[in-house]
Amino acid sequence: MAKKNAFYAQSGGVTAVINASACGVIETARQNKKDIGKVYAGNNGIIGALREELIDTSKESAKTIAALKHTPSGAFGSCRYKLKSLEENRAEYERLIEVFKAHNIGYFFYNGGGDSADTCLKVSQLSETMGYPIQAIHVPKTVDNDLPFTDNCPGFGSVAKYVAVSTKEAAMDVASMCETSTKVFILEVMGRHAGWIAAAGGLAAQEEGDAPHIILFPEIAFNKDKFLKRVKSTVKKHGYCVIVASEGAQYKDGTFLADAGSVDAFGHKQLGGVAPTLANMIKSELGYKYHWALADYLQRAARHIASATDVEQAYAVGKAAVEMALEGKNAVMPAIVRGKGKKYKWTIEEAPLAEIANVEKMMPRDYISKDGFGITDKCREYLAPLIQGEDYPPYKNGLPVYTKLKKVMVEKKLKKKFKV
Amino acid sequence: MAKKNAFYAQSGGVTAVINASACGVIETARQNKKDIGKVYAGNNGIIGALREELIDTSKESAKTIAALKHTPSGAFGSCRYKLKSLEENRAEYERLIEVFKAHNIGYFFYNGGGDSADTCLKVSQLSETMGYPIQAIHVPKTVDNDLPFTDNCPGFGSVAKYVAVSTKEAAMDVASMCETSTKVFILEVMGRHAGWIAAAGGLAAQEEGDAPHIILFPEIAFNKDKFLKRVKSTVKKHGYCVIVASEGAQYKDGTFLADAGSVDAFGHKQLGGVAPTLANMIKSELGYKYHWALADYLQRAARHIASATDVEQAYAVGKAAVEMALEGKNAVMPAIVRGKGKKYKWTIEEAPLAEIANVEKMMPRDYISKDGFGITDKCREYLAPLIQGEDYPPYKNGLPVYTKLKKVMVEKKLKKKFKV
Repeated sequence: MAKKNAFYAQSGGVTAVINASACGVIETARQNKKDIGKVYAGNNGIIGALREELIDTSKESAKTIAALKHTPSGAFGSCRYKLKSLEENRAEYERLIEVFKAHNIGYFFYNGGGDSADTCLKVSQLSETMGYPIQAIHVPKTVDNDLPFTDNCPGFGSVAKYVAVSTKEAAMDVASMCETSTKVFILEVMGRHAGWIAAAGGLAAQEEGDAPHIILFPEIAFNKDKFLKRVKSTVKKHGYCVIVASEGAQYKDGTFLADAGSVDAFGHKQLGGVAPTLANMIKSELGYKYHWALADYLQRAARHIASATDVEQAYAVGKAAVEMALEGKNAVMPAIVRGKGKKYKWTIEEAPLAEIANVEKMMPRDYISKDGFGITDKCREYLAPLIQGEDYPPYKNGLPVYTKLKKVMVEKKLKKKFKV
Repeated sequence: MAKKNAFYAQSGGVTAVINASACGVIETARQNKKDIGKVYAGNNGIIGALREELIDTSKESAKTIAALKHTPSGAFGSCRYKLKSLEENRAEYERLIEVFKAHNIGYFFYNGGGDSADTCLKVSQLSETMGYPIQAIHVPKTVDNDLPFTDNCPGFGSVAKYVAVSTKEAAMDVASMCETSTKVFILEVMGRHAGWIAAAGGLAAQEEGDAPHIILFPEIAFNKDKFLKRVKSTVKKHGYCVIVASEGAQYKDGTFLADAGSVDAFGHKQLGGVAPTLANMIKSELGYKYHWALADYLQRAARHIASATDVEQAYAVGKAAVEMALEGKNAVMPAIVRGKGKKYKWTIEEAPLAEIANVEKMMPRDYISKDGFGITDKCREYLAPLIQGEDYPPYKNGLPVYTKLKKVMVEKKLKKKFKV
């Protein structure tokens, strides 16, 4: 069998450690040059393949590739572009395979969440029927932590650490001034569908009474009265109240708090953001002085406070993906499997893509406390190992040194252009 | 002269390093036990003195006091409580001095910004006229960086580092996805009156074209047309646009953007926050997909990414305050003085409180670029040294180990209560 090249692409929202997976893929491929050719990366993700915009990673130095391990964001560019179903747009898949064929690509490493697992599976299947079989391996990544099979998802641990540390720090700030100033602080975090990230805020509480006092999960229907009562009793008891709210917090009927449009004291409808919605609610009903923060991209880009465990796992899934490909595997994903013992241990095992694609893993109900406002010990046991360890990037002049790629493009071979 | 005790209090908004100053004060006092008695700290700042709620810091172990150096927030509690003028409420000052007298306090170390410098001065003056002279030393602290005489203010360097690092990381995230997703990202930072913190975001730009592309300062009148034009041209040129906006950004007539109430696409008035106001403006006029973050307390509490220079200076001003007191100084503030050479060097010198109180240091116009949207090289030279060096706190189980005090209260000696 002639030596094939590989294609790697980043998909969807980027993370603090997705480039560590890229590093794992590229370094492992480089260590297996006798079996694997060059690694081409999609410029801006899968649309780079459709447009035949391939970045030749062999033009990047070993030092640059190594530096990907501590560089956040998507170094090759990512995209929010979900391929349609085979029935709806078979031409897209065919184009992908044409491009792969033109560049002698036999391995497809797709670094993303649930949608990209689905794409990966379809590429594997269709390439087979088109007579140009490609080994498609999905490299897991998502801050949402919602992929099945894998114990956790690379990217999540670092957001979790950021949220836990930030909650702890801001809560100390509020506690030290609550006598005469802010009584309620709200931190809005990511998680439109699942409360994993909000749950991580719960790790900040290490002793009874510690903040956060309230966590709002998308999984638990928001009850305004119950919420306000809890805020009030918390302020009475502790002098202040810290809330971590998932952007996906919603009413029983599925309306997101962020879209619900609470009305402020002036009768103006307040739009956008769970945090300001809650803040207005608290101000008008309880009269407490409040502050709120919206971490937004800061949380998923925060490589400066990445979890060492997360970095290691992100690298490991990239490495394992290449090793699985070399073992002849196809339509699989390297999954993180947690050991049984008390001490946290993990291994990488393969999981079949057919059972992963388009399945979302929600927070189990027994990870959320009975009253719906906190996490249980079981959840804490699950989350705690994922934020372990610090893995600081190098610094120069007070700023982290993150790498930039040269991005040398591979010469196009196809005459046909493809409009994306 | 009988050995006198000292009183220390934290004032106003806390910072990531105000406890490092406390550490400097207490450790230095402990090293001079033959000349200085116990250090009592105000519970929740100056109101602790008014209420005769004094924390006996001698009950805290050397290890705990040392750990203050890496603990954010106000460990003894702070307050937003400005003493009225002597004419308006002489009783308050008299109460302070009564409490100090009752506890044999001869040194007053007040750790705060402009207002507390003023209080400090008045305590010095009034104690003299009341026949119980107290040496009052102001220990500078403010993230706003607006105190005169001192080259910079402890607390600012760490916020500056947080903002610069966060801007850099979020900008990389946006850049890697702008092809198909978010085009404009806005980070709202503190600074109601002065643009120092927003300016620090400018340090993230290390090469031509780097983010942030636009900085909005309170010092420069906001011009909507000019702003939108710049956003548009930046997106056209770079594919994305990153904006760092000071919460104090304002129109020519002094109206804050945050209060201006822009109207969204649904005709609803949008209240609160510069970032959402700008985002709505951009969405409705240019149609770009946007994201925004509001760092709020996260920025000033972020001890995990503190500037080592800032930590060192915060400690040094605390230490110097005690040394000045022991030299018999009164009504002074240890100020940070920058050396003249190319290499950044600093020393601590005394500055007279009479000339500090109630003076605000604004950004010089030549620190802001001609077009009003960026910082000049001169500003960069000023800011860059202040974010140098990392000073990580210890970690356990993935979280920083911040210290908690026992807060043993000194027995009250005065019969009269004072209502605050």
